[in-house]
Amino acid sequence: MKINKQWLLKSRPIDTLSVENFQWHEQAIPELKDGEVLVRHLYLSLDPTNRIWTNSWDSYLPPVKIGEVMRGIGIGVVEASRHSKFKPGDFVQGLLNWQTHMLTHGDQLARLNVAEGVPLTTYHGLLGMIGMTAYFGLMDIGQPKPGETLVVSAAAGAVGSLVGQIGKLEGCRVVGIAGSDDKCRWLVDELGFDAAINYKTGDLEQQLEAQCPEGIDIYFDNVGGDILNIMLAHLNIGARIPLCGMISTYNDKELRPGPSNIGALLMKRALIKGFIVSDYFDRAKEAGEYLLNAYKNDQLKFRLEMHDGLENAPHVFGKLFDGSNTGKLVLKVDPDWREA
Amino acid sequence: MKINKQWLLKSRPIDTLSVENFQWHEQAIPELKDGEVLVRHLYLSLDPTNRIWTNSWDSYLPPVKIGEVMRGIGIGVVEASRHSKFKPGDFVQGLLNWQTHMLTHGDQLARLNVAEGVPLTTYHGLLGMIGMTAYFGLMDIGQPKPGETLVVSAAAGAVGSLVGQIGKLEGCRVVGIAGSDDKCRWLVDELGFDAAINYKTGDLEQQLEAQCPEGIDIYFDNVGGDILNIMLAHLNIGARIPLCGMISTYNDKELRPGPSNIGALLMKRALIKGFIVSDYFDRAKEAGEYLLNAYKNDQLKFRLEMHDGLENAPHVFGKLFDGSNTGKLVLKVDPDWREA
Repeated sequence: MKINKQWLLKSRPIDTLSVENFQWHEQAIPELKDGEVLVRHLYLSLDPTNRIWTNSWDSYLPPVKIGEVMRGIGIGVVEASRHSKFKPGDFVQGLLNWQTHMLTHGDQLARLNVAEGVPLTTYHGLLGMIGMTAYFGLMDIGQPKPGETLVVSAAAGAVGSLVGQIGKLEGCRVVGIAGSDDKCRWLVDELGFDAAINYKTGDLEQQLEAQCPEGIDIYFDNVGGDILNIMLAHLNIGARIPLCGMISTYNDKELRPGPSNIGALLMKRALIKGFIVSDYFDRAKEAGEYLLNAYKNDQLKFRLEMHDGLENAPHVFGKLFDGSNTGKLVLKVDPDWREA
Repeated sequence: MKINKQWLLKSRPIDTLSVENFQWHEQAIPELKDGEVLVRHLYLSLDPTNRIWTNSWDSYLPPVKIGEVMRGIGIGVVEASRHSKFKPGDFVQGLLNWQTHMLTHGDQLARLNVAEGVPLTTYHGLLGMIGMTAYFGLMDIGQPKPGETLVVSAAAGAVGSLVGQIGKLEGCRVVGIAGSDDKCRWLVDELGFDAAINYKTGDLEQQLEAQCPEGIDIYFDNVGGDILNIMLAHLNIGARIPLCGMISTYNDKELRPGPSNIGALLMKRALIKGFIVSDYFDRAKEAGEYLLNAYKNDQLKFRLEMHDGLENAPHVFGKLFDGSNTGKLVLKVDPDWREA
């Protein structure tokens, strides 16, 4: 009999999510019934948004309940199927959650059509939610035009690094904000950003003025908080702010004061718009073609940081919040899995 | 020899703009030269935005300099012309400023084609900047759909009262926020709002929840500050906030903390966009037709509060900030003027 290993949410985090908030659980997987499919989980995507789901309040999804399997996006392979739409060997993606297997009616699953020569994990990055998030946030809300100045926060992060590179493809001057000199060097030397600013050293506002002498036309915001406030003071007329994340505030115990410079939205006739990638699922093909094309032309670099073993999920997740990851965090759930 | 009477800006206001900040000035009007036009000023529009222009910082226009004639939008009649585009008797509008006459090359002037049977002052209200502001903010940014809930702040104000009425024409449930029971009654009984809330009595949030049981789809913001913050907590997914004004903050001596609920923009994938009416001048015809048509069908009510005499401008202007005006403030600059 097969065993499903799971991380259940045991308690809500006070600030940082840690292993104390989870409980390891193992249970036998029942026999497959008609209409069901059994997925063997291969890769789990670890993203800032997972933290949001562990709070007690509704976000864009309801909170994960105490005692439930922790929610997460994964890629898996169909191991057995009595479902007309899936057959053994099919790759699937969706909310597979923090577990090794999933027995399901398939409502949450999407079949993954892997393009020739593309590694499977690319669909957790460049060609997955991350890539679509970067593409639609920048293209649909940011509306980049050649010669404009684009600033990206958490620029060395999974979404940010793609936003900057797409911005370059669209002809923008691209300035990244990141949290270490190493990350900044990577942005400029490897990804082709025009400049990068380490927000932890020196005066951010001064550095920003030096690197954006003509002001900011697009600020792609992944962090919220103080950095958003500084950006507001440097917007050009008609600026756009795709609001993709506010990671600087996710661990807050109570609401902090908002940006004192919010009046700039009025004075500069600027736009700020929150979004999540699922708003754009009906246009997924557009993003997929753009990104696959750029990927094949070697125009988009993307760094994955792979860790092994579902048991390490809570620990590895913490790297998102201490800034110690150097690429999109992916957990290899099944250590025996080898890609063809 | 004709005399031009003017209010010059003498000093920058600390909080409320008052007569101490102005200096009365009279000067002879020189002879008309080739290419010049002399405008006799009939009506002056007094608007919250005038306050913004007296600060020392750039807004959407540069500040009025100390010693300059105070900036303001007016309607006038051409008294003499050596300009090919204007002839005596033409009505004009534009930045005529706080004075009785203007000698100009005409760059800032637009000819006013007064529709049959429409009083001239209507072009300072319903058919002027005010009407266009309400129309474009609501229609272009707000994107109202039948059945949606629209909340308007400063709802008894010039822009707000039109926004609510246009919202009704578009099929929305319309809830107004105003500062007195009289204003609230006027909104519901005379203008046809579905509900109105006096933000000065009782708990705003509680009243809002009672009047917007299905949440807020559009919040047309004229005030910013605390009310904006409360609205953010009640947005529906995909909500839109046309940001038209932030009058609650214009007298602030320093930046106040911004809205602590700004995270709602992300969680609700909501949009907030500042605008000014001049962004839409190339679409003025669209608004003009819509508004004139609704006006002729008696579907839009608009209240003007007329005061006499340029000398009273600073005093009358103060009514905008103590909430004592009960309609769009217009100053009749020339007491001898009688409309045909």
